[in-house]
Order: sequence, then structure tokens, then C-alpha cells
Amino acid sequence: MSAARTLHLNTNITGTGRHPAGWRTLDNPKSIIDLGFFTTIAQIAERGKLDAVFLSDAVALRGHAHGPAQSLEPTVLLTALAGVTRHVGLIGTASTTFNDPFNLARRFASVDHLSAGRVAWNAVTTYDPEAAANFSIAESPDKQARYARAEEFVEVVLKLWDSWEDNALIADRASGRYADPARVHAIAHAGRHFQVRGPLNLPRSPQGRPVLVQAGGSEAGVALAARHADAVFTAQTTFEGAQDFYRDIKARAVAHGRHPDHLLVLPGLYPVIGGTLAEARRRKADMDALLDRGAELAKFAGALGIDAAALQLDAPLPYDLIDKGDRTDVSRGFIRSTVLLARGENLTVRDLLDRNPGAHRMIVGTPETIADDIERWFAGRAADGFNLNADVFPSGLADFVDHVVPLLQRKGIFRREYEGTTLRDHYGLARPSSRYADAATSAVADADALGAVS
Amino acid sequence: MSAARTLHLNTNITGTGRHPAGWRTLDNPKSIIDLGFFTTIAQIAERGKLDAVFLSDAVALRGHAHGPAQSLEPTVLLTALAGVTRHVGLIGTASTTFNDPFNLARRFASVDHLSAGRVAWNAVTTYDPEAAANFSIAESPDKQARYARAEEFVEVVLKLWDSWEDNALIADRASGRYADPARVHAIAHAGRHFQVRGPLNLPRSPQGRPVLVQAGGSEAGVALAARHADAVFTAQTTFEGAQDFYRDIKARAVAHGRHPDHLLVLPGLYPVIGGTLAEARRRKADMDALLDRGAELAKFAGALGIDAAALQLDAPLPYDLIDKGDRTDVSRGFIRSTVLLARGENLTVRDLLDRNPGAHRMIVGTPETIADDIERWFAGRAADGFNLNADVFPSGLADFVDHVVPLLQRKGIFRREYEGTTLRDHYGLARPSSRYADAATSAVADADALGAVS
Repeated sequence: MSAARTLHLNTNITGTGRHPAGWRTLDNPKSIIDLGFFTTIAQIAERGKLDAVFLSDAVALRGHAHGPAQSLEPTVLLTALAGVTRHVGLIGTASTTFNDPFNLARRFASVDHLSAGRVAWNAVTTYDPEAAANFSIAESPDKQARYARAEEFVEVVLKLWDSWEDNALIADRASGRYADPARVHAIAHAGRHFQVRGPLNLPRSPQGRPVLVQAGGSEAGVALAARHADAVFTAQTTFEGAQDFYRDIKARAVAHGRHPDHLLVLPGLYPVIGGTLAEARRRKADMDALLDRGAELAKFAGALGIDAAALQLDAPLPYDLIDKGDRTDVSRGFIRSTVLLARGENLTVRDLLDRNPGAHRMIVGTPETIADDIERWFAGRAADGFNLNADVFPSGLADFVDHVVPLLQRKGIFRREYEGTTLRDHYGLARPSSRYADAATSAVADADALGAVS
Repeated sequence: MSAARTLHLNTNITGTGRHPAGWRTLDNPKSIIDLGFFTTIAQIAERGKLDAVFLSDAVALRGHAHGPAQSLEPTVLLTALAGVTRHVGLIGTASTTFNDPFNLARRFASVDHLSAGRVAWNAVTTYDPEAAANFSIAESPDKQARYARAEEFVEVVLKLWDSWEDNALIADRASGRYADPARVHAIAHAGRHFQVRGPLNLPRSPQGRPVLVQAGGSEAGVALAARHADAVFTAQTTFEGAQDFYRDIKARAVAHGRHPDHLLVLPGLYPVIGGTLAEARRRKADMDALLDRGAELAKFAGALGIDAAALQLDAPLPYDLIDKGDRTDVSRGFIRSTVLLARGENLTVRDLLDRNPGAHRMIVGTPETIADDIERWFAGRAADGFNLNADVFPSGLADFVDHVVPLLQRKGIFRREYEGTTLRDHYGLARPSSRYADAATSAVADADALGAVS
């Protein structure tokens, strides 16, 4: 990274935006299966010089009676978006619980090739009995088992991405030598969850390795991020809480021998933008009026691990009932940040639902308010940047790009043009070399293993 | 299908073409990771009004010392090609041995959405200890186990593709109803290999179901094709053998209550084209001169299930040594068609290597010879069309499109323009309705199952 710190901005482009009733304001509310809709959004992100677009994911259907859910598979949709953009990064979520490391490593490396080095994998684990029921798994694994598998899964994927050295593909027409077997390495991974010989059946991708993002807020998730991730997505609702998280995870990365700048901390941010505060509030109120309140209350209660009947709109949260850590079907990061916010500002359930009955911090305001807030968090090392959640696409993102981004550029904290071509370039991350490139000691073992596959 | 039978033509676009030394004639021999290369090929196919482009696949690396192997993951590459073409179909191979039905069904349905209905899944099983070693499988399953899994895998995928009825996505802004849970069906599959509740987390795709292709030549493969496939890829080296196969598989389809026109029989064809026969022979000889003969002989012996030392260049095949069916690591279709060809024309090993040391019938000739041969096979019901294998891209395909296709059009057996928009349209296949659309009797069970996921 250069001496001057630079702000990083992604935008979540899942569904029709973060507001659950946002789709009811769209001309084409069936847009979640419409490539034109996502093309518009990705091109707006690129117009705003954003680092990346991001797709979250789920592998079980729910909530579809009231609004759009996840739908198109992320690596496929991101490949299509690579074709209609030139610079913006492409971050896709895929679960280590319901995938296989060889196929996943190959798929993300393929997108990295086809996008000329713009892809990232957001590695998540999944606790969801509904999802498990789609994958022939009778009982969803508990958190410890999920993260043990995730750690090993990530390790296998990183090894496979390294299995071809940069100069392994020769393609020398004169001699007829295509690849150099001495530079294509079996990974010979033999672990508890996976036994994978490798190598990957694909030459090394433009970024060396696709960028690795981690998004889990639990202790195990944070530990995984500190060890392996290039960026961490996190739910942070207070400035001080975010500073604590930032300090802690950077220190952990350093303890693993890493440079703290090589792990970007990117909290979620949910801006609702108006030319004046009144306009911003009206924008939100108009969308809120379209909400199914009962469905939202039930969703909120479920996320807190409690019964909807325990929530009273004009009372504080029932703190004593909220799950303290023995359940595995809730997000600890979400509960922690919600409780922190509610206690800190003495909020009622109605206030919380009003703010954003989801994980991410909402700011309803003018472009100036929002840009100032971003600058404060960035300068105060509460964040290296943000993962933006527009209320509804495309207008919520277009307003940010057209009115907030120019203010951030004027403050000198955000790029005016893309300076590189890959997502690693945008994030200020070095291109890693293959772990096998200098492995002189393992050369003989590799050559033996390769004998069988070449 | 309309009264007039129409020829169907796909082109295999895997690697750099069928000739193992073809890459040594290319300006950019590293083209297997170059989207521009595949874009050129797909656009040539579309200029020729071909039904589809086709990607074979493998999930273990081999042969990379001497030439290009499979590399970019098919669903990802086909999605990229969907963005640079408008009509041509997109057929991708994926193994039922090393995938999961939910993820695979979702991925192909996603490509079907993003390509506006142009995708097909070529379902294969994989016997390959090298591949198994990439998927934590100690021993590659035998043929019976592979096909038992494949049958159930295909069944689950077809059910998932049906799980949303066509009109399930309402997206009614006024009422706030997004999807109609009564038209989104749990599949509740509980089988020996898979337990999948469903529904898929994606609305029904443009083709209703992506086209299903089957490519295995064994008894189990043919049985699967007759029951489920819309098209079958097959290795046929003699006219009479192909007629026998055609009659047999159409009769099997009819025995399953299907219309024989709804299962297209598409043998492989490997044309080497020259303005004169001498030119065509020179084109082939020039490429043959670049071959690594030792590597080719070893590959051929391996495919026959015998030792390379047992092959003598100027002798017939050692028929008594060639595998008779007890091994599972060879393709029965390949062995059968090779033996048939060698016996029928009394060929030596050198002759066979010269023809094409792969599964598909080679014709070295002028556009007229090749067009006449295609017409004869089509009219004689030895084929409904062909899966073409160009010697090297892009020239081999461009020659076919520019010089053979016009002759086929003049004969009145091949389209001059695309008449529809989807691959089903090109293939003359009806769009299927969801099996759940009229399932009044199962409505209660479905509603119960859905209660848990909606």
C-alpha cells in the first residue's frame, strides 16, 4: 500500500436492495432474474469508481411470499457482470458448508480469468436446517464443526489456487511443450475433512489468488479472517465498538505475522439519502409504509433468537431473553451489534425496526452528513471502508454515487479514477506468489505425485 | 416438431480443437484461458446458425505437458459466451459423480435465465481415480454405483427445475405479494443417494427446464438417455452401426412413452476440410507432423484398456487383449466403435491413429464430400444431426460454417436463419410444463412442506 490510506467502498447488489419493501417501488419488480437490472447497478457502481459489487447468498428459499430472496447463483451472475463492466471488482458468497473445495476453487479461478482479475470469494459457513435439507444432511452441523470444516476448506482452496506457478503455462509451439510439469504441483492435502491431491485443472489466475473475504462475526469467524482473509465484512453499529473490532482484528492479523494493511475492515453501511434531511426521511417513510410489519417483527425476533410475542413495540428489547450464546442458529455479530445500539441509545423495539431491522448501521441524511460520517469512521480507524447497502436499486446506489462519492473525492479520501485493473489493485493488496514457487525441498515429492497425473 | 425434419448441428468448443497438435499452429497458443478466443469461436458458430456450442469437461489434470486440457469451468465460460452471442445454444458438461444436485440445478437454471433460455446440461458420470482423488473419495465408484447415483441425481435436478411453476412469481406491487407459495413446491425427494426438500431458490427458467443431454455409450448410459434425455451424444464410426443405435434408442424412448422426435441422436463428427481432397489431406498431414507420436500411442492404448507395448503400428489391433467389459475405467462406446471400424475396414494401428485416435468419426475431404456424407446419415436415420469436432479453432470451424453449411442449406436440410430464441426452439423440443402444475392431489402435502420454508 502507498503511504496515503485510501477508502474502500463495495456495494451489496443482492436482490432489489436492503429495504424489504423496496421492490414495490420498482417499474419491473421481477428484476431479480433480469440481467439488465444487475447490469445497470454494476455500471453505476463502476461510474462511482467503487472497489467492488458484492452478492450475498443463501441456499434455501424463504421469505419469498413477501419479497425477493437470493436467486441467481453468484459466480454465474458475476461472470455475466464481468462482461458488461471493465474495472469494478466482483465479490461472490459461497458456503464452505455446502460446497466442495475443488469445484469451488476452480469456479472462482475461472471467473478471475474471465474478468481479468476482478473476483473475490466471500467464504461463509451456513447454519440453516432448511439449507441442510437441500443437501442430504439430516442435521445441520454445529458452529464448531462448521468452522473446523471451513478452516480446512479455505486451506485447500488456497493451495489449489497456488498449484500452478505463474510461469507453468509455456505453450511453446516449436518444442511442443505445453505446460511445465515441474511448475504444476500436486497439493497432496490429507486432512480431517478433505483429501485432495490436485493440482487444479486450470492455470494460475490473474490475481494469483482471487481475493478472500470473510463475513462471520463469531469468535471462530474472526479468527479465520485474521489468519486468511484479505478483507472482512462486519456488522458494526457504534463508532467505539467498530474501533474496538478494528484494533482487535488488526492485532490478531499481526500476531499471525501479517501486515495490518493487508486485512481490510469493511463494516456494513445502509445510507438513505435525500437532498435535505426531510427528503431523506420522507424517502424512508414512503418505503416503510409499504412494509408488512408483522413479517418484519417476526424476522427480527427470529434473528434475536426469541419469540415474536416477547417483543413489545414501545418497550426496550427483552435483554434477559435474548440468546446469550448457546444457540447456533443466530448470528452473534448481529445480536451483539443490535444490543450495543439499543442499550447505547436506549431504543425501543419500534426505534430499532425503524432504524433497520437488519444487521447494518443505517444513516438517514444528506450527502454531506453521510460523507462526513464515512470520513469520521475512516479517519478514526473504525473502518478501512464500507460495504454499502442501498435501500433500493438502482436509485439508492445512483444517489450515493452521484452525490456522496464526489464529496469523498473532494475530501481526498476516495479515488477519482481506477489506478489498477484488478480487485487486488483497488484494495491495495499485493499479488501473492505461489507457495510452491520456491519449494525446492518438496520438488521431488511433487514430481512423484505428478507422475501419476501427467 | 414441424413435419419437415431439420438437421441439428452443435460444435464442441473444448480446448483448441480436436487435433492434439492443433495448438501448435495458433498465433496465441495460450488461448484456453482467453475469453477472446472462445468469443470468436462462439460467434462463428452463430454465424453458421449452429444449434449450440458444447463444452466437455474433466476434473483432473492430465496431458498438460503436451497440449491443452480442460480448464475454465463450463457453466462460467458459457455464461460469458451468453453475453457475446444472441442465438446459439450453450451446452455444458458436469459430472453427477462429483457434484451435488441442488447446486448444479441452480447453476444451470441461473445460466438459462441469463442466456434467455439457451442452456443445456450434458450429464455424465466419471470413472477416474485421479478425479476421485480431488474429491476426498478413496476409491472411484464402479459403473453400477455411478449410474445408480446418476439416475437419482438427474431425477432430483428435474424435480428442482419444476419446483417453481411458471406463474409462481407474481411481484404484485399493490398487494405486496411477491411469490405465490401455493405455486412453489417442495420436492421432498427422499432417495437412496439424495434427500432434498427443495424448492429451488430461483424462479422457473426460460426453457422451463434446461435441455438435458446424455453422452455415455454404456448400457446404463443409453438407458438413462432413453428415459430422460432430450439429446444424446454418441460415438458412431459406421453408417450401419449408427442406424442400429438410432433405431434402438428411439425404440427405447417410445417404450418409455416418449415421442421419438423428442430424443435427438447426435453422433460426433470430425471433419478436416480442404478446397480439394489434396488440400484437406495436406492440412491434416501438416498437423500430424507436429504430433508427439509416443504420447498419442500411449493415450490410444489406455483408452482401449491395454498396454502400449501390445500395439504394433503396422499390425491389426490385438482384439483378444482389448477389454471385453470387466474394466470400468474405459469408455465402452469408444472401444465398440473403434473395434467396429478397425474390423470393418481391416485397419492397422497406424491407420487408426491416422484416422483419429479419439472417439469420433473423421472425414478428410472437400465441403461437398462432407455435406453429402452428412445428408446421407441424416436421410438414412443414422443421425438427427452431429456434434462437430473441428481440428483446430477457429479455422476448422470457420471452414465448416463458410463452406459446408451453405451446401446443407442448399440441400434444404439446415436452417438459413434461427426461427426461435431458445435451444429448445432450435432442437424442435416443446417447453415442458412443471410436473407440479396440475398436482391437485399433492397440494396439501406441498402446502405442509412449504409451511416450514416460507
